Amino acid sequence: MVFSGRAHPALSKEVARLLGIGLVPTALYDFANGEIYVRYEESVRGCDAFVIQSHTAPINEAIMEHLIMVDALKRASAKRITVIQPFYGYARQDKKHRGREPISARLMADMFKVAGADRLMTVDLHTAQIQGYFDGPVDHLLAMPILADHVEEKYGGEPLAVVSPDAGRIKVAEAWSERLGGAPLAFIHKTRNIDRPNESQANRVVGEVEGRVCVLVDDLIDTGGTIVQAAEALKADGAADVVIAATHAVFSGPAVDRLKNSVVREVVVTNTLPIADECRFDKLTELSIAPLLSRAVREVFEDGSVTSLFNGRA
Amino acid sequence: MVFSGRAHPALSKEVARLLGIGLVPTALYDFANGEIYVRYEESVRGCDAFVIQSHTAPINEAIMEHLIMVDALKRASAKRITVIQPFYGYARQDKKHRGREPISARLMADMFKVAGADRLMTVDLHTAQIQGYFDGPVDHLLAMPILADHVEEKYGGEPLAVVSPDAGRIKVAEAWSERLGGAPLAFIHKTRNIDRPNESQANRVVGEVEGRVCVLVDDLIDTGGTIVQAAEALKADGAADVVIAATHAVFSGPAVDRLKNSVVREVVVTNTLPIADECRFDKLTELSIAPLLSRAVREVFEDGSVTSLFNGRA
Amino acid sequence: MVFSGRAHPALSKEVARLLGIGLVPTALYDFANGEIYVRYEESVRGCDAFVIQSHTAPINEAIMEHLIMVDALKRASAKRITVIQPFYGYARQDKKHRGREPISARLMADMFKVAGADRLMTVDLHTAQIQGYFDGPVDHLLAMPILADHVEEKYGGEPLAVVSPDAGRIKVAEAWSERLGGAPLAFIHKTRNIDRPNESQANRVVGEVEGRVCVLVDDLIDTGGTIVQAAEALKADGAADVVIAATHAVFSGPAVDRLKNSVVREVVVTNTLPIADECRFDKLTELSIAPLLSRAVREVFEDGSVTSLFNGRA
Amino acid sequence: MVFSGRAHPALSKEVARLLGIGLVPTALYDFANGEIYVRYEESVRGCDAFVIQSHTAPINEAIMEHLIMVDALKRASAKRITVIQPFYGYARQDKKHRGREPISARLMADMFKVAGADRLMTVDLHTAQIQGYFDGPVDHLLAMPILADHVEEKYGGEPLAVVSPDAGRIKVAEAWSERLGGAPLAFIHKTRNIDRPNESQANRVVGEVEGRVCVLVDDLIDTGGTIVQAAEALKADGAADVVIAATHAVFSGPAVDRLKNSVVREVVVTNTLPIADECRFDKLTELSIAPLLSRAVREVFEDGSVTSLFNGRA
Amino acid sequence: MVFSGRAHPALSKEVARLLGIGLVPTALYDFANGEIYVRYEESVRGCDAFVIQSHTAPINEAIMEHLIMVDALKRASAKRITVIQPFYGYARQDKKHRGREPISARLMADMFKVAGADRLMTVDLHTAQIQGYFDGPVDHLLAMPILADHVEEKYGGEPLAVVSPDAGRIKVAEAWSERLGGAPLAFIHKTRNIDRPNESQANRVVGEVEGRVCVLVDDLIDTGGTIVQAAEALKADGAADVVIAATHAVFSGPAVDRLKNSVVREVVVTNTLPIADECRFDKLTELSIAPLLSRAVREVFEDGSVTSLFNGRA
Amino acid sequence: MVFSGRAHPALSKEVARLLGIGLVPTALYDFANGEIYVRYEESVRGCDAFVIQSHTAPINEAIMEHLIMVDALKRASAKRITVIQPFYGYARQDKKHRGREPISARLMADMFKVAGADRLMTVDLHTAQIQGYFDGPVDHLLAMPILADHVEEKYGGEPLAVVSPDAGRIKVAEAWSERLGGAPLAFIHKTRNIDRPNESQANRVVGEVEGRVCVLVDDLIDTGGTIVQAAEALKADGAADVVIAATHAVFSGPAVDRLKNSVVREVVVTNTLPIADECRFDKLTELSIAPLLSRAVREVFEDGSVTSLFNGRA
Repeated sequence: MVFSGRAHPALSKEVARLLGIGLVPTALYDFANGEIYVRYEESVRGCDAFVIQSHTAPINEAIMEHLIMVDALKRASAKRITVIQPFYGYARQDKKHRGREPISARLMADMFKVAGADRLMTVDLHTAQIQGYFDGPVDHLLAMPILADHVEEKYGGEPLAVVSPDAGRIKVAEAWSERLGGAPLAFIHKTRNIDRPNESQANRVVGEVEGRVCVLVDDLIDTGGTIVQAAEALKADGAADVVIAATHAVFSGPAVDRLKNSVVREVVVTNTLPIADECRFDKLTELSIAPLLSRAVREVFEDGSVTSLFNGRA
Repeated sequence: MVFSGRAHPALSKEVARLLGIGLVPTALYDFANGEIYVRYEESVRGCDAFVIQSHTAPINEAIMEHLIMVDALKRASAKRITVIQPFYGYARQDKKHRGREPISARLMADMFKVAGADRLMTVDLHTAQIQGYFDGPVDHLLAMPILADHVEEKYGGEPLAVVSPDAGRIKVAEAWSERLGGAPLAFIHKTRNIDRPNESQANRVVGEVEGRVCVLVDDLIDTGGTIVQAAEALKADGAADVVIAATHAVFSGPAVDRLKNSVVREVVVTNTLPIADECRFDKLTELSIAPLLSRAVREVFEDGSVTSLFNGRA
Repeated sequence: MVFSGRAHPALSKEVARLLGIGLVPTALYDFANGEIYVRYEESVRGCDAFVIQSHTAPINEAIMEHLIMVDALKRASAKRITVIQPFYGYARQDKKHRGREPISARLMADMFKVAGADRLMTVDLHTAQIQGYFDGPVDHLLAMPILADHVEEKYGGEPLAVVSPDAGRIKVAEAWSERLGGAPLAFIHKTRNIDRPNESQANRVVGEVEGRVCVLVDDLIDTGGTIVQAAEALKADGAADVVIAATHAVFSGPAVDRLKNSVVREVVVTNTLPIADECRFDKLTELSIAPLLSRAVREVFEDGSVTSLFNGRA
Repeated sequence: MVFSGRAHPALSKEVARLLGIGLVPTALYDFANGEIYVRYEESVRGCDAFVIQSHTAPINEAIMEHLIMVDALKRASAKRITVIQPFYGYARQDKKHRGREPISARLMADMFKVAGADRLMTVDLHTAQIQGYFDGPVDHLLAMPILADHVEEKYGGEPLAVVSPDAGRIKVAEAWSERLGGAPLAFIHKTRNIDRPNESQANRVVGEVEGRVCVLVDDLIDTGGTIVQAAEALKADGAADVVIAATHAVFSGPAVDRLKNSVVREVVVTNTLPIADECRFDKLTELSIAPLLSRAVREVFEDGSVTSLFNGRA
Repeated sequence: MVFSGRAHPALSKEVARLLGIGLVPTALYDFANGEIYVRYEESVRGCDAFVIQSHTAPINEAIMEHLIMVDALKRASAKRITVIQPFYGYARQDKKHRGREPISARLMADMFKVAGADRLMTVDLHTAQIQGYFDGPVDHLLAMPILADHVEEKYGGEPLAVVSPDAGRIKVAEAWSERLGGAPLAFIHKTRNIDRPNESQANRVVGEVEGRVCVLVDDLIDTGGTIVQAAEALKADGAADVVIAATHAVFSGPAVDRLKNSVVREVVVTNTLPIADECRFDKLTELSIAPLLSRAVREVFEDGSVTSLFNGRA
Repeated sequence: MVFSGRAHPALSKEVARLLGIGLVPTALYDFANGEIYVRYEESVRGCDAFVIQSHTAPINEAIMEHLIMVDALKRASAKRITVIQPFYGYARQDKKHRGREPISARLMADMFKVAGADRLMTVDLHTAQIQGYFDGPVDHLLAMPILADHVEEKYGGEPLAVVSPDAGRIKVAEAWSERLGGAPLAFIHKTRNIDRPNESQANRVVGEVEGRVCVLVDDLIDTGGTIVQAAEALKADGAADVVIAATHAVFSGPAVDRLKNSVVREVVVTNTLPIADECRFDKLTELSIAPLLSRAVREVFEDGSVTSLFNGRA
C-alpha cells in the first residue's frame, strides 16, 4: 500500500499509477494552530506500507507530517513501513562543520526510526555516508542514469565535457563521464588571490572545455548562485554551451530568476521535489523520478533486488 | 545555562533575568530552503542545560528547532538537558480518538528523548497522562495559582462561580473552586435535541450562576468558539459577569475577534505562548509565567523540590 | 495459537472455543517459595501467539505470570506475541496525582515490551491515553455495545436516563446516550457544603431523572461505595429504577454486599474478570466478552480491521 | 538516601542505622484490588538512592513493589538508583532446563533496568552468571565470611569437614575449606541403583567425615528436604555432628519442621530474608547481613571499592 | 539461505550440502591493514539468513568477521538473521571471577544483537546461563548424543564408567551416565595436601573405575593439561582404558602433543571447530556436527521444533 | 584515570605523563586460544575513565581488546567512559560503495556504545560524517596544525604548493593552504585514456607546481602506492621537491619500501599508530600526537572547551 503526504501529491500519484494501484485514502489537514492531523480511511493492518513525502518548503511541516504518518501506521499495525524521501531533508547538516553544531541528518534518521520506520528509500543523498545514520536498511537510488540518458540523447552528437561546480563533488562527475562514454572531466576551482586576500573568490576552470557542450552536474540546485557562476566561467573559458543537470530542484529564493537569465542552454532536473508552475521556465526540463521509485518499490515488495537496478552500485 | 529558541525570546529572557544570568549566545537562522541552523557560541561542555521553546505557530518549525537545539547540546557534551515546553505541542493528540490515528503527543516525547533530552518541564498539560509518555522525569508545573490569585484579588469581593466550558474538564474547575474558598461549580452541557437530531447543539448551563461573576476556566484558548458561546450561555442564564481564565493563549484564527467582541468582562491568560501586539485588546490581561519557570529551574538546578512549589501536587 | 494464564481460564477457554481451536497445553505452577514456573508443552516456533490473562486478585501474581509467559514465548521463537489484558492492571495509576508517585500504568507497558510483547489488546481502559504508553500497536476494544444492547433489550420500552457516577466520566455516558437513541444525560456531583467545610460530601444529582430507569455507567466497580451511593441519590431524586452497567467487575472487599443490599434493580457487567461463585447474586447479570475478544483475535490474525468492529472508533 | 519496601523492614532499618541515617519516609499500601501504591514523603531530586527489598513471600508482590518504587524514584529525578536485592528472586530460573521455558532471572534484570535501575547489589547469587543479565554494574556480595567466622569461632577446636549437599555446588565448599584452614571436603552423591532403576535415589557420602563436625554449606534452604537428607547420610557415615550454613533462609512449607526435628546440631543463616517468629527454633542462629550491606552502600556512595571487602573476589 | 565466514568453510559446506542448497557466494577478504571486507554476490533481500562462523583462532578475527557479515545482511534487507556459532567465543568469561573483570560472553551477545542478529544457534555452551545473555531466542544444541552413540557402539560391550575431569561439571557426566544405560559415575578431585600447603595439587579419583573403560567427558579441550592428568590418575587407579569425549576441539598450544603421547586410547571430538591436518593423530576420532546443525536449521526455517531433536531438553 | 590497551603503549604513557599521572595498572593477556583477558588492578568506581587504544595491526585484536576494556569499566562502575581511538578502525567502510556491503564504521560506533562508551575521541576521521555514527558526543581532533607547523618551520622559506593525491580530498588541502599563508593548491587527477580504455590510469597534475616544494597531504598512508605515484607525477611536472604529510601511518605491506625508495624528500606523520623500529627510515619524521590528546583529555575532564583547541572547528 502506498501513502502520500501533502508535500508533493503529483509524484506519489504517478508512482501509484505505475504500480497499478491507488493511493490509500487519507485524511490530512492542519488544526487551527498548525498541528497536523492524519487518519487513514482504510484498514492498514498487516500491510507493507510505503510512505512518500518530499521534504520541500515548508520543509519542517513536510518532515513532521511524514513522521506523524509513520507513527499512525505503526499504531495501526502496519507490518512493515518503508519511508520514501525522494529528497532527504537536512542532508547537508551531516557533520559538525564547527564545534557545537547539531548533526541534523542523523537526528532525522533517528526520529524516523523512533516513529516506526523499518526502512528508508531515498534518491541521491548529499553524501553517501548518511546511509549509515539509519539503523536499518536504506535503499539509495541514483537518478544519474535518468539524467544522463536525456543528455546523451540530446547532446550525444556534440563534443561533451562533464563539469563539477566545486572540488568536493568530482566523484559524481566521474560517474557521469563513464556513463557518457568517457567525456573529459573538468571542474570549477574557487581560489582566493593570495596577494589580495580581501578580494572575493575567482572561479577558475580546470580541464578542457573549449568548444564543448559542458554538462554541469550537481546533486541539487538551491539558490543557484554557485552553479550559475560556474556556467559563466565555463562560457568565459570558451565552452560552446552549458547544460545543468541536477537531481533535486530545491529552487529557493532567487534560483529561478538566476537560472532563467543565465547563459545556460538547458537545466535538467527530476521531480523529486515539486516545482510550482511559476517556477517553470523555457530552459527547464523536468524528468520524472516516478518510474525509478515505482520499480524500487516493486523490488522491495517482491523481495527482489534494488541493487540490480544500478548494476551493483547503491 | 539557559538556551532559547526563536519562538518566544521575550519569555526566555525574562526567565534568565530572574535567574540572574544571561541566555547563552546562540546562532539560529534558516537556510534558503527552510532548514534550521543552530550553533552555540560558547562552550557548553558539562553544563546543566535548560532549553526553552514555546510551541507556537508556525508550530512545526518551533518544535523542529527545539529538537535540533537538543541534538546540538547532546553532541557538544552538555551534562544534562532539560527541555522546557511552556506549551507542549500536539498535547491534544494524546490518544486515538478513532482507529488509524497517530498518538502525536507520545511521538513528541519520544523524539525529544532520542534527540537527547534527559528531562521535560512543561506547564498545564492537556491531560496529565502525557507525563507518562516521556521516559524520564517530567516536571509538570501548574499555572492555576497565578491565574487564581489575580482573579481573587480583583473579584474576590463579589459572589463568584467557577465554570467549566465542557463536561470533560470539571476536575480542573474543582481545583479552582477549592482555591477560591469554595465558590460554587457549574459547567456548560452541550446537548442535542433528541426530537430534532439534525439541529445543532444547545449549550445548557448546569449549576447556579445567577447574579454571580462566573470564572470560566480552561487549559487553552484556541479559536475561542466554544468558550465564547459558553460565556453567552452564562449571561443568558443571568450571570452578573463572565471572566475567562486560561493558561495557554493559542489564539488561532478568529479567536481575538471573538473574544474582543464577546460579552466577557476580562480574559486572563499567561505568556506561555507569545501574544502578538495586534492580538492584544483591552479586556486581555497577560500574567507572566516566568517567575514560576525560573523558580522551577532553580529547584532543578539545586536539586531542590519542584513539588514543594505546589504543596505536593504535580 | 491462544495461551492462557491461571487467573481466568474460563474466559480463555471460551475465546478459544469460539475460534474453533484449543488452548495450547501449558505447565503452570508455583514453586514452594511462590516463584512461578511456566513451560509450553507444544512447539510454538513461528506461531502468532495470543496470551490471555486477566489482571485479577492476587493481581501482582497475575501480572508476573503474564510477563513470564511472554518471556517464554519470545525465547521459544514465537513469531508475533499479542498480549491480551481484558482488564489492564494498574490502569488507574496513569499519572502522578502528586509529586514522587510512580506512573505504574506506563511501567506495565514497558515491562510487557521488554518481556517481548509486540502488541497489546485490552478492553475499556481507564483513560484512553494509556494506549500511548505502549511502544507498538494497541487494540482498544469497547464493551459498551454489548452492555448497551442488553440494557436496550430489557428496558428499551421504559423511559431511560444515562447517568455518570462522577464528573470525570461524562464522555462515556454521552456515548451511551447516543447508542440508546438519545436518552437524557445526568450525573452525580459530589459537593462539599462550603459553609460547613468539615462535613462530608453530598451527592447531588444533576439532570432529569424523575420517573426514569437510570442506567448508571462506569468502567469498573471496585469496592462499590461510590456507585451505590450514586444509586441511592438517584432513587432519592425520584428515579423509577436504577440499573448499573460496568465493564470490569473488580468486586473488591465489601463490593458484593453493598451491591446485593442496594436499591439497584440490576447490575450488568462483563466477564473481563472472573467472578467467584460466592460473589454472584440475584441482581447480577454477567455478559460474556469472549465473542468480542475472539472476533478481534480473528481480525488481527487475518490482518483484517479491528476498527471495523466499532464503526471507526477505537 | 536509603528506601525500603515492606517485605523486610527490619533489615532496611538496621542498614540505615549502621549508616547513621534514617529511612526516607514512604507511603506504601495496597489498594482494595491489590494494586500497590507508593509515594515518597520527602524530595528525592538529585539523590543517590539505595532501594532495599527482600524478595520474600509473597514474592511477586515484593518484586512488583520493588519495581514500582524504582519507577517512582526515576520520575522524581533521583540521580542514581541502586537496587538492593539481598535475595534475588527467580535466580534459580537462570537457564532453559528444557525447551519453551522462560529465563526469568534475565527478565527480572531487564524489568529493573526498564523501571530505572542504574545498578544492582545482591548477595550470593544462585549462579554467578546472573551478574551478566543486568546491563550495568552489579555488586555481588558474599556472605560466606560472615557464616564462616561464626562456624570457626564455635567449632574451630574440633575436627571439621566441609560438605556440599549436591555435586553442583562443590566450588562453594572449596572456598569454605580454604577459609577454614584447609578442612577436608566431602559431598553427597545422589545415585540411582542401576540394577533397580525404579527405586529411589540413595545419598552416598563422598569424602572423609567420620568423627568430624560436618559443615553442610549451601546458598539457600527452601523446603529443606535435600539438606536434611544429606545431614542424615552424614550421621549414618559416622559424622560427629552436622552444622548447616546457608545464606538465604527461604524456609518454605515444611522447612522449619524438617530442620527442627533433624539430626542437625545448628542451622546458621543470615537475615537476607525475614524469618517469622514462628519459624525460629532453638537450633537456629541468624547472623545479620546488615553490616555487610551498609559497608557496601558506603563504598558505592563514596566511590570506594566493593571488591576490597572481599580481597578481590566478587 | 546459508552464509559462511572464512573460519571453517568445510563445516558450512557440509551443512549446506545436507540441506540440499549451496552457500551464498560471498566476497570476503582482508584489506592491507587487516580490516575485513564482505560483500554478498546475490540479492539477499527478504531472505531467512543463517550465518555460520566457528570462533576459532585467530578468534577475534573470526568474531569480527561474523559481526560484519551480520551488519551487511541487515543493511541488505534480510528478513531474519540467525547467527550460528558452533563454538561460542568467550563463553568461559561468563561472570566476574574477581572484581573489575569484563563479562565478555554477555558483550558478545550484545554485539551480535546490535549488529542485527535476530536469533542465535550454538552447540554445548560452557554454561547454560549464557542463553540468557542474548535478548532473543537461542537454540542451544547438544552434541552429547552424537558422541555417546559413538562411544556406546564401540565400547558398549565392555564395563564402562563416566568420569568428569573436575568437580564443576558432574551434571554433564550424569546425563552421559543415563544415556549409557546407567554407567557408574566418577570424577577427579583436585586436592591440596593441607599439611603441606605449598605442594602442588593432587588428582584424586572419586568413584569406582577399576577394570572399567573410563569415558572422560568435557565440553572442550583447550591445552589438554587437565584432561590428560585426569586420564593418568584414572590409569593409576586401575582403569582398564580411558576414552576422552569432548564437543569442542580447541586444541591450543601443546594440546595435540599431550593427547598424542598420553595414556588415552581414543579422543572423540566433533568438528564444531576446524582441526588442521597437522593436528590430527591416530587416536583422534572426529564426528561431524553438520547433520545436527542442518536438522536444526531446517526446523527453524520450517517453524518446526528444535526441542524435539533432544526430547525436550535444550 | 587513563587506561591503555596493548596496541600502542608508548603513546598512552606519553599522554599520561603529560597529564602528570600514571596509567592505571591493568592485567591484559591472551588465553591459549586467543581470547583476551583484562582486569584492572585498582578500584575504578566513580572514575572519569579515558581508554586509549590505537587500532593497529592486528586490527581486529586491537578493537576487541578495546571493547572488552570498556565492558569491564562499565561493570566496575566507572562514572563516565571516554573511548580514545587515535586512529578509528574501519573508518574507510563508511558507506555502501555497492549493494550488500556492510557499513562497518557505523557498526564500530554501535559496538562501543553497547559496550558502555559514553563519548568518543578520535583524530582526523576519514570522513567527518562518521561523527554522526556514534549516539553521543564525539571529540574530533585535528592533527593538521601539528603537521603544518613542522612543514612551515622547515620549508617556510621556499615557495610551497599544497597537493591532494586525489580529487576526493581537496577540502583538506584547502585548509592546509590557508594555514600556510595561501600556498597555491594542486591535485592529482587520475584519468583513463578514453581512446584506449583498457590501458591503465595516468596521473595528471592539476595546478602550478613547477619549482615549488610540494606538500602532498592525506589522512593516512596505507600501502603507499597512490601517494608515491603522486609524488613521481609531481617531480615529472617540475616540482622542486615533494614532502608527504599524513596523520595516520598505517604503513601496510610494501609501504615502507615504497616510501624509502621514492623521490620524496620527507615523510611527516604523527604517532597515532605505532611505528615499528624496522619501519623507520631516514626520510621519516614522526611528530607526537600526545600533547594534543592530553590537552583534549584535560578539557574534557575539566568541562572546558575542545573546540577552543582549534578555533571553533571540530
